[in-house]
Amino acid sequence: MFKLIKNEGTARRGEFTTVHGTVQTPAFMNVATAGAIKGALSSYDLKEIGCQVQLCNTYHLHVRPGDDLIKQLGGLHKFTGWDGPILTDSGGFQVFSLAKLRKIREEGVDFNSHVDGRHIFMGPEESMQIQSNLGSTIAMAFDECVENPAEYSYAKQSSERTVRWLKRCKTEIKRLNALPDTVNKNQLLFGINQGATYEDLRIDNMKRISELELDGYAVGGLAVGEPKEEMYYIISAVEPYMPKDKIRYLMGVGTPGNILEGVSRGIDLFDCVMPSRNARHGHLFTNMGIININNEKYRNDMSPIEEGCLCPTCQRHSKAYIRHLFKAKEMLAMRLCVTHNLYFYNMLMLKIREALDNGNFIEFKNKYTDLLDTRI
Amino acid sequence: MFKLIKNEGTARRGEFTTVHGTVQTPAFMNVATAGAIKGALSSYDLKEIGCQVQLCNTYHLHVRPGDDLIKQLGGLHKFTGWDGPILTDSGGFQVFSLAKLRKIREEGVDFNSHVDGRHIFMGPEESMQIQSNLGSTIAMAFDECVENPAEYSYAKQSSERTVRWLKRCKTEIKRLNALPDTVNKNQLLFGINQGATYEDLRIDNMKRISELELDGYAVGGLAVGEPKEEMYYIISAVEPYMPKDKIRYLMGVGTPGNILEGVSRGIDLFDCVMPSRNARHGHLFTNMGIININNEKYRNDMSPIEEGCLCPTCQRHSKAYIRHLFKAKEMLAMRLCVTHNLYFYNMLMLKIREALDNGNFIEFKNKYTDLLDTRI
Repeated sequence: MFKLIKNEGTARRGEFTTVHGTVQTPAFMNVATAGAIKGALSSYDLKEIGCQVQLCNTYHLHVRPGDDLIKQLGGLHKFTGWDGPILTDSGGFQVFSLAKLRKIREEGVDFNSHVDGRHIFMGPEESMQIQSNLGSTIAMAFDECVENPAEYSYAKQSSERTVRWLKRCKTEIKRLNALPDTVNKNQLLFGINQGATYEDLRIDNMKRISELELDGYAVGGLAVGEPKEEMYYIISAVEPYMPKDKIRYLMGVGTPGNILEGVSRGIDLFDCVMPSRNARHGHLFTNMGIININNEKYRNDMSPIEEGCLCPTCQRHSKAYIRHLFKAKEMLAMRLCVTHNLYFYNMLMLKIREALDNGNFIEFKNKYTDLLDTRI
Repeated sequence: MFKLIKNEGTARRGEFTTVHGTVQTPAFMNVATAGAIKGALSSYDLKEIGCQVQLCNTYHLHVRPGDDLIKQLGGLHKFTGWDGPILTDSGGFQVFSLAKLRKIREEGVDFNSHVDGRHIFMGPEESMQIQSNLGSTIAMAFDECVENPAEYSYAKQSSERTVRWLKRCKTEIKRLNALPDTVNKNQLLFGINQGATYEDLRIDNMKRISELELDGYAVGGLAVGEPKEEMYYIISAVEPYMPKDKIRYLMGVGTPGNILEGVSRGIDLFDCVMPSRNARHGHLFTNMGIININNEKYRNDMSPIEEGCLCPTCQRHSKAYIRHLFKAKEMLAMRLCVTHNLYFYNMLMLKIREALDNGNFIEFKNKYTDLLDTRI
């Protein structure tokens, strides 16, 4: 259940209540692709770094270890040890980006697993069944994510099929939630807006899916090749057609600047692999911009990644030590940096919420949007 | 300062006091080669897993990031964040096992770095200078570690040179400890017994080095190719010649069974990469023997690695989850398994100390020596 607490322009301060706990929004979801945050973080570290929602990938967990096994073991919460809300994506994005030799038809998609090459078929029903087996808090609708730029005619055809698929998802999740041995009988379903970068397709699609009375609405298919201005334009174009009483999620986005722009355009939820991926290369977020810890100038720098940062890494270790760990190829380098970057993202969201509470979000956004994305 | 608390046969229960804290012996030192335990463990995790002493490698830290840098940054304790005792090896073992194109002469060893191939010279004085820069609690003497089996004549020549080197180490560390800008003015020096598998050489060497009144004595050059019975025989042969009022360290040893046998032969300190290396391959120690977490039978096993184990991993995660993390090549697998194995080793030492306190160590040893080393 989404409760809108306050607006500042189009930006929203809200609260999203689930059976696995309440999420203060705007929020960033921390990505644990295969049921673990890359960089050796455990579910038990997530509370320490301010994480509210863990995001797991349906496709990855379906191919390994298998959603049937996870169901047998009591669902993702028991399996990973994270007791807060979990969102699972639909598998669609990975099917279209990772899998080999895919073939799309009305029923769904045939493809070969990127792990062992075996043939897999996934359609709306299969995606819902897998996510039901995983027992996540929130299931995402199965959609086609079209790469930008896309042909108008193909984008239209695809976004219309995605609406038909969404209806099948809704029917299927209702059936699954009512089964006696379902892991999470209260599993929620979010629909996904598609239509590439075509305003009319996006709006038409949004109108149609908003009628389906889903638990939340996502904007998908952005940050997949188009300039960021185009992404912002599309969000602003569809926003008036998104239900105000439902939570809104911008999928796979993005940099701190992207998130600030997204919040200002009425988005409540975000996810991205960027903070953990950047961390694994030593690119670290600070309130002064992005630093590269591999830089020679940090060789003898005994100060933390950022002075005043309260993350477990900055409380304990110096830039000189972390740089050494990277050079020596020690795994600890990854863990310390992923910890810092995710903490930074979660704290950014906290600061955004505080700014919304205090009515000075726009001021905050104007100060930080460009600054945080700058490499220094 | 070593205090012998109690004997059971040749086995010793003791206490070793240093400027960085007191070590209850027998103890196992946890190996942090390049200043970090492999498997993404931080110095701040070590107390949670019962670690008393961290061991760092002089050779590795000399080539990267450089001992001069570590001195400039305040020494290894400040650099790694571990405030307990640190032992540094002399670099000798790595020079003889890792480095390329080495040439030994009376002054020391010429070799090329395994990282960038650059020429390095290391002799007793250089090893002491590096260890002094690192500021460890305990410095090890620079020795030649001969591979077994060795020619008698070479072993004799090498062990005699090692005694001459030891005297130079003693002179040099005394000089370094007195310098005004030394990191740790109380740095201790342990001598190393060598002589390959020749009883007479070992005893002769031990008699000579015991006269030097060092802070501790190590048995080196074992577990380098010889059968374990030969190792045990040599330890028993030199033990009567080791000073009773000094701490004794068996270098690079070993399995739980090796440690139990070592303690029963009068050894107080151990170190080995085995628990962390095995962990990184999913080979996990339990009180029933060694399990391989990759085994198919753990696929749906929601029990911890060992029932009743109080390590952070067993308190939180199941065999099924850890097995999945290995299959999915998630770094977290390493961290969870290294945590368990090091905890197991540290707890084994605690149980050994308790058995010695209670006077039932031999009973404990007879029960566990073979059991713990068995793959089940």
